[in-house]
Amino acid sequence: MFLQYEPSKHHITQAHDWIQGRIHRTPIFSSKSLNSILECKLYFKCENLQKVGAFKYRGATLAILSLPKTEFKKGAATHSSGNHGAAIALAAKMRNIPAYIVMPRSAPHIKKLAVESYGAKIIYCEPTLQAREEALEKIVAKTGATFVHPYDNFTIIAGQATCGKEILEELGALDYLIAPVGGGGLLSGTCLSAKYFSPETKVIGAEPLGADDAFRSLREGSIQPSVNPKTICDGLLTQLSEKTFTIIQKNVSEIITVEEETIIAAMRMIWERMKIVVEPSAAVSLAVVLENKKKFLGKRVGMILSGGNVDLEKLPW
Amino acid sequence: MFLQYEPSKHHITQAHDWIQGRIHRTPIFSSKSLNSILECKLYFKCENLQKVGAFKYRGATLAILSLPKTEFKKGAATHSSGNHGAAIALAAKMRNIPAYIVMPRSAPHIKKLAVESYGAKIIYCEPTLQAREEALEKIVAKTGATFVHPYDNFTIIAGQATCGKEILEELGALDYLIAPVGGGGLLSGTCLSAKYFSPETKVIGAEPLGADDAFRSLREGSIQPSVNPKTICDGLLTQLSEKTFTIIQKNVSEIITVEEETIIAAMRMIWERMKIVVEPSAAVSLAVVLENKKKFLGKRVGMILSGGNVDLEKLPW
Repeated sequence: MFLQYEPSKHHITQAHDWIQGRIHRTPIFSSKSLNSILECKLYFKCENLQKVGAFKYRGATLAILSLPKTEFKKGAATHSSGNHGAAIALAAKMRNIPAYIVMPRSAPHIKKLAVESYGAKIIYCEPTLQAREEALEKIVAKTGATFVHPYDNFTIIAGQATCGKEILEELGALDYLIAPVGGGGLLSGTCLSAKYFSPETKVIGAEPLGADDAFRSLREGSIQPSVNPKTICDGLLTQLSEKTFTIIQKNVSEIITVEEETIIAAMRMIWERMKIVVEPSAAVSLAVVLENKKKFLGKRVGMILSGGNVDLEKLPW
Repeated sequence: MFLQYEPSKHHITQAHDWIQGRIHRTPIFSSKSLNSILECKLYFKCENLQKVGAFKYRGATLAILSLPKTEFKKGAATHSSGNHGAAIALAAKMRNIPAYIVMPRSAPHIKKLAVESYGAKIIYCEPTLQAREEALEKIVAKTGATFVHPYDNFTIIAGQATCGKEILEELGALDYLIAPVGGGGLLSGTCLSAKYFSPETKVIGAEPLGADDAFRSLREGSIQPSVNPKTICDGLLTQLSEKTFTIIQKNVSEIITVEEETIIAAMRMIWERMKIVVEPSAAVSLAVVLENKKKFLGKRVGMILSGGNVDLEKLPW
């Protein structure tokens, strides 16, 4: 299933069948106290409890299973300073093939450790896009590994879409489904799942105001670059790609930006009230509800807690 | 069901029937990475995800439901600087009766807030046992509320026993079941559940070395006082009572003490690898496995993550 086109309903169903059993079907939590504070019904899909601690393992697993037979043994390569790298590393390990992860030397120690612990080969580079791409090209040329882009890849998008599919299968037609947006892999997949499995559910993208390139892209009608993003959400620094932008533009209800303070408050609320560890990027969806209480009053709102990989030495409070 | 004697199998089953639906049946998590590091099969019962964030809500709910009819409307009183106070407060609120919680003025702000938010009346006192007891006696005399002791109470013990019952129902005969020990309510209940529902399972009490009064009590054959306990585990500072000591002495396999460093390392492992928030007192069980790897090699080990109420401003790393 190496998808050349936008995933269809059939593709997403097939993707889900394929990766089920290899990924966790993560639980959906709710919190009476948050529901009563915010006067709506919130449902939290806990992808922080997914393998490697992030939804990225869905797309990565599908991508590794989808490698063309002739290329399979040569493995997969990607560049990532975050969860996608770890996800590709583990998904490759599960199939006993090599993984090559290009990472900036400046990446957090904890992320390097994770990728290493899954047995992938790390190639360090300077923290610029050019250095990343050069290092990647080199390793691909040398090893024959297949490059798996973190989001500008229809197979990855189909994999991430299985998360929204699980939510809608379990909860039926929600009023809203909120997902964070960085490169747009999760949001575009969520848009497709809502379109196919619950068209009455409105999908909202949640974005930090300090990295509002997706919001601006929708307004301008073309991909706007993410220049010097300033946010604690290290998973949401990248900009949309052609594939994710096209799907999001066509299907999303809106993108809502939120302040840094609200993101931190939302993150803390989740830790304190729900007793689970989420990373800042995962808290952006709840921040959207905190800043727009009226909009969600009395509604049934699903949100994707995208990941839980956070440096416990550097908490924002 | 105001129990005058040690709970029987029938009592615990009835207690469970009674409180089911009012408490969460908390999930049991496992972690591939922890299993592979420790070379055994660990099962974590997530009472940090219980209402009020601790197993204490089980016993409190049963105790409130068991108040004698004539006394019911007058409510419940207790002294507690921790989770038991919050549990009684919420359980009373759910039944629309008053709760009176005696707390030392020095209790953490976050615990005061929790008890207040459940609508209980807080009576502040000096942080000595004598001051606590005097304040409690006064409020009981004044209001006619029934005193619910945090652990020297067979109804409370039967309520806490439902946690071990759920574990053994789901997982069958474990080799070991580990629970932290402070006053002994959870450990004595766990001992009874193992005795009745899986007699081949050995129950181990986990205790900080800096508060090893339960360990010493078993060795001496009589309750030893907890004098100046020095541990980060604020839930494990109290000593055993007559009722809990008797049950534990008869039924526990052993009590194992652990170093503070190991407790902190265990707590951090749970946060980082399992993405859930647990308090130090809950991490003591995993610390026992960390310090005694050989003993648990290849075994199936259940452990109770007793609570998740922790001040996020004061993490131990």
